[in-house]
Amino acid sequence: MMGILAGLRVVEVSAFVAAPSAGLALAQMGAEVIRIDDIRGGLDYRRWPVTEDNTSLFWQGLNKNKRSVAIDIRKPEGRELARSIICASGEDAGILLTNFPPRGWLDYESLREAREDLIQLTVMGNRHGGSAVDYTVNPAIGVPMFTGPEEHKGLVNSVIPAWDCITGQMAVSGLLAAERHRRRTGEGQHIKLALEDVAMATMGTLGFIAEAELGVDRERSGNYLYGAFGRDFISADGFQFMVVGLTPKQWRGLCSATGLGVEMEHLAQLRRLDFSREGDRYEARREIAALIESWAATRNIGEIEAAFAAENVCWNRYQSVKEMVLNDPACSEENPLFVRREQAGIGEMLMPGSPLEFTGLDRESSAGAPGLGEHTDQILAELLNMSPGEIGRLHDQKLVGSG
Amino acid sequence: MMGILAGLRVVEVSAFVAAPSAGLALAQMGAEVIRIDDIRGGLDYRRWPVTEDNTSLFWQGLNKNKRSVAIDIRKPEGRELARSIICASGEDAGILLTNFPPRGWLDYESLREAREDLIQLTVMGNRHGGSAVDYTVNPAIGVPMFTGPEEHKGLVNSVIPAWDCITGQMAVSGLLAAERHRRRTGEGQHIKLALEDVAMATMGTLGFIAEAELGVDRERSGNYLYGAFGRDFISADGFQFMVVGLTPKQWRGLCSATGLGVEMEHLAQLRRLDFSREGDRYEARREIAALIESWAATRNIGEIEAAFAAENVCWNRYQSVKEMVLNDPACSEENPLFVRREQAGIGEMLMPGSPLEFTGLDRESSAGAPGLGEHTDQILAELLNMSPGEIGRLHDQKLVGSG
Repeated sequence: MMGILAGLRVVEVSAFVAAPSAGLALAQMGAEVIRIDDIRGGLDYRRWPVTEDNTSLFWQGLNKNKRSVAIDIRKPEGRELARSIICASGEDAGILLTNFPPRGWLDYESLREAREDLIQLTVMGNRHGGSAVDYTVNPAIGVPMFTGPEEHKGLVNSVIPAWDCITGQMAVSGLLAAERHRRRTGEGQHIKLALEDVAMATMGTLGFIAEAELGVDRERSGNYLYGAFGRDFISADGFQFMVVGLTPKQWRGLCSATGLGVEMEHLAQLRRLDFSREGDRYEARREIAALIESWAATRNIGEIEAAFAAENVCWNRYQSVKEMVLNDPACSEENPLFVRREQAGIGEMLMPGSPLEFTGLDRESSAGAPGLGEHTDQILAELLNMSPGEIGRLHDQKLVGSG
Repeated sequence: MMGILAGLRVVEVSAFVAAPSAGLALAQMGAEVIRIDDIRGGLDYRRWPVTEDNTSLFWQGLNKNKRSVAIDIRKPEGRELARSIICASGEDAGILLTNFPPRGWLDYESLREAREDLIQLTVMGNRHGGSAVDYTVNPAIGVPMFTGPEEHKGLVNSVIPAWDCITGQMAVSGLLAAERHRRRTGEGQHIKLALEDVAMATMGTLGFIAEAELGVDRERSGNYLYGAFGRDFISADGFQFMVVGLTPKQWRGLCSATGLGVEMEHLAQLRRLDFSREGDRYEARREIAALIESWAATRNIGEIEAAFAAENVCWNRYQSVKEMVLNDPACSEENPLFVRREQAGIGEMLMPGSPLEFTGLDRESSAGAPGLGEHTDQILAELLNMSPGEIGRLHDQKLVGSG
């Protein structure tokens, strides 16, 4: 099976979410991704969630489809070996993805001496190279202040490293754009990408910065969709669901499905609003929600589901991750996104591939994560043309490991 | 100024977040992005936040650096015109980015008749082409069940469309990968990308699905960092901050900065834990937090800041978006990410460019968003070689608009 990026070779020196998720995305599009880790395991090798015997499900999840090389990068000879792998020959190679500081052995200018057309992408915490993680970037961009129940007065952190995930995908674009440029000009690149900048740029893109510049500090609006209509409700038999009326069509569908069209019109007249305007729906969101709340409270979820389906209402039931894994066909092999495969040391697992589906090309299905150093010998032979004897000596010196 | 994607031309037919944010990222790397909208404004033309005169700050934020064409796409002749723009000649053109259904005028096979090597990327709600938005995808992947204060029993929705943003960046990768493939083989693509698949794949990548498969349903852990140590605290003078001890170095720095090293060792002995293990720090997170809470409560933020700086602690203060805009140098022109520029109809605004910084190439600074249809005439002339007379006739027929 050939992925769309077949032939491209990327070396990853990384930890945690952003850079590894970029390597994963590249690998799942068919690139050959070689992750170099310290022989003892990197900083994220035991990151939670873990199994009972402390195998990291997080690490396994982020390093699928990659090859793993383990080197003692605390020793100068180990770092030199890693540099040789990074700068190894190959027209479609010479691409380094990292969130390690671009200093010392990963200094771009010095790597360029070994490979002039190197493309290096460095993910940083902030633009000065300072340390920051998703958990410390999120406080600075205001979001925890308006997340959570309206009556709650405190801060609500995100449980998903959203900025990391966005940064990871942006790193993929950056590398592909630079590779395109190299193909046209022969020039390499050192691309820098700061997590904090990604978060701030996103806040700008979504209008939050402009809103604040106009003097508005976004208030907590609980589970209401901002700026139109949407909220969570509960059915008579206790199922929770989210329903939205964001577009005119969705709003009309919701009114038809609930049979509340006349009541909504009365409400709009009473409040001197026009519910064909999304902002007016937001103004009257509490009253709209009260009507739908009563409607939902007297119906079982089956009836609600049927009514919504008939009018193409945009909605969804809430479910826990466990319920999703147990019951949702979208989270099963029925969805071509997933395969179920043996993961060494854990057992059979459901593994997602790339969400990108290309026509005429196989979806690169997940091959699971490698063991730490599983491909060390293979890669030393392939990329650096080392003989079994030379590789053996590196093992004797404890400079490399192979799982 | 030339961006790294200079020469590439992308036509965007879209609304809301995912597809427009992909177009924005491409435009901010220097691609020529032409957004085609209905002459009346698309579904997102009034999306909140808005100014007092109902100009959408959201729309402005997502459509910067693009050119805008306004066409009556409810009329067959309008749709034909849009198809001609999509399929217009140019080696680095023939790329369509859309979240409109790939049917009718946007049917891939029929577009291919006009341009065989077309690359089309369709962002969908779910893999069946069903409607879904970030607000309705999030309930299905479990996150609202473990977001928010530990004592809270309800659901907490995300206020940031994280899945949309991740999907948008993935769309950029998909298009660049397909463009690379086309250059090598001459073949176009229809790429499909479902918001729901992106969310599910991410939950798999981060280990949530594997954890649930092992029978664990993640519990709400409030503002604690999961699996190591981290939480929010408040200083004596009332400043809130987040501090983490995720890596060994960060943890040692936190112990040194607070002078609580001995107390932490006692605590670990008492609980028979080893705080050099990240999971053990998580087990004892409440007791660790109690110690830091007392420490923080007797110190002003200035003193805390100095102590943390001396030990390179990974931390950050919480601030609202308004505070960020007013006080944070990272959210100002001091950061090369931003420019301050006049946005027609709104006034001077702080605008982010691409967070990706390429060496040797100018950062494509933001040019602001176009007026709806601002470039209609220009693009009809340039891409379709229309004469002023022909363009005038299209205006007379109200088939096109120009702002």
